[in-house]
Amino acid sequence: MKTRIISGAVLLPLLLFFIIYGGLPLHLAVVVISIMGMYEFYKVLSGKILPVHFFGFAMCVFYGVFAQNIVETAGMFSAMTACFIVLLMCYMVLRHKEVDVKDVFITFFGFYYVCFLLMHICLVRNHEYGQYFVWLIFIASFVCDTGAYFTGVTMGKHKLIPELSPKKTIEGSVGGVLWALVASVIFGLAISRVVVFNHISTVVLCAIIGTAGSLLSQIGDLAASAFKRYMGVKDYANLIPGHGGILDRFDSVIVTAPVVYYIMIALL
Amino acid sequence: MKTRIISGAVLLPLLLFFIIYGGLPLHLAVVVISIMGMYEFYKVLSGKILPVHFFGFAMCVFYGVFAQNIVETAGMFSAMTACFIVLLMCYMVLRHKEVDVKDVFITFFGFYYVCFLLMHICLVRNHEYGQYFVWLIFIASFVCDTGAYFTGVTMGKHKLIPELSPKKTIEGSVGGVLWALVASVIFGLAISRVVVFNHISTVVLCAIIGTAGSLLSQIGDLAASAFKRYMGVKDYANLIPGHGGILDRFDSVIVTAPVVYYIMIALL
Repeated sequence: MKTRIISGAVLLPLLLFFIIYGGLPLHLAVVVISIMGMYEFYKVLSGKILPVHFFGFAMCVFYGVFAQNIVETAGMFSAMTACFIVLLMCYMVLRHKEVDVKDVFITFFGFYYVCFLLMHICLVRNHEYGQYFVWLIFIASFVCDTGAYFTGVTMGKHKLIPELSPKKTIEGSVGGVLWALVASVIFGLAISRVVVFNHISTVVLCAIIGTAGSLLSQIGDLAASAFKRYMGVKDYANLIPGHGGILDRFDSVIVTAPVVYYIMIALL
Repeated sequence: MKTRIISGAVLLPLLLFFIIYGGLPLHLAVVVISIMGMYEFYKVLSGKILPVHFFGFAMCVFYGVFAQNIVETAGMFSAMTACFIVLLMCYMVLRHKEVDVKDVFITFFGFYYVCFLLMHICLVRNHEYGQYFVWLIFIASFVCDTGAYFTGVTMGKHKLIPELSPKKTIEGSVGGVLWALVASVIFGLAISRVVVFNHISTVVLCAIIGTAGSLLSQIGDLAASAFKRYMGVKDYANLIPGHGGILDRFDSVIVTAPVVYYIMIALL
């Protein structure tokens, strides 16, 4: 627990810098985090890093370059998806002797699961009101995460899904969502003077995003456990002391980022 | 071979009707073909149809509804991709006892490989000049396919990739591309009176599309063989007498459709 807090305290300022600064540095940071995350995902799911996985890394770099605004560049996104499949098919044909089709599927899924979803952090940040709402991604995931932990420790009785995550309790899960909701409302009140919309209250919007985000962040967390459990590993890696790998730390952000983005797009 | 020609002669008029008519009937036809194709893909790759595969079918229906113009609706496409992953994650968590993560990857890939790529037939058809260029999809795939067959039979000597497709020869492969090129040029000449562009000759455009399409159609064909070989089956199904399943017939169209679409988008 101690190392967990210490390394968290070291990485937090770094995270804060990139989010506040936004723009290219944030894009680069997300691309780097995505590649590290994909590396962990591929290594765990395929057993080791294979040549086919590099198509996934290449897609990550390419997508990182143009993912400024998904709506504007989405024609490109669809072209990219088509190219990705065709490239994988070419590789399957040319390397048919050594390639395992299972790894082709893992390469394809891994890119969307890690890079594509994480890139929504940039999409949110690049939004007109992104400099404010980008924080909700981390409020919904990290506050929920921490809130769930302490609520579970103090009043946790009933196990949530012991097969996937032995320590998680229903009380902790509910507590996490409530903590995230409270934090989102406080955040909404804080920005409600500078961020004003005619059709919706900023506080209500933050409450909706915070609740939906924190609910789904726990799905992200549990799904990551399901992936790891499937391969019989506890952590994706041991990169961040006390936190495990990049994916162990970002498994919930992976889901909250798109949730925040699409709720913003839908309601603003 | 006889049954192959007969059933081809039965299905061809049907195909012609939908392509000429376009619009909603074509969309519905492609959705139906996609679901049949995905069914075959899932059944072969996962061994049998599983509950998780229905997320793929649902995505196919949903995508079929709005895929009128990928560039306009691509924000939706990216949202859909995110939803697809999150839904699969929810399912993995709720059904963690019975779900095999491998089938989650197959479900995800199968949708993009079959439905998403095939939908480009509609995207091409909905294009301003789609009523003309949509034919190049089938010229590039079927003419190449048939041309390769007869060239291979008459002058085939050197095997192409015997492990994947024992009968294919290099001569046949080259012949197929040449036949498709000739057919595309003839088609280009035929429409060059009605379809005129300032910046590019219609014949040259058709030649480029026909060559690229036929080259990649063979990749599609061989990749399908790689999928089947991986699972140790000869055909995906035995739906169309003499042709095998939907995917055995459309394995090359799956690739030529996006090739035609994106070359059109890029050059027009």
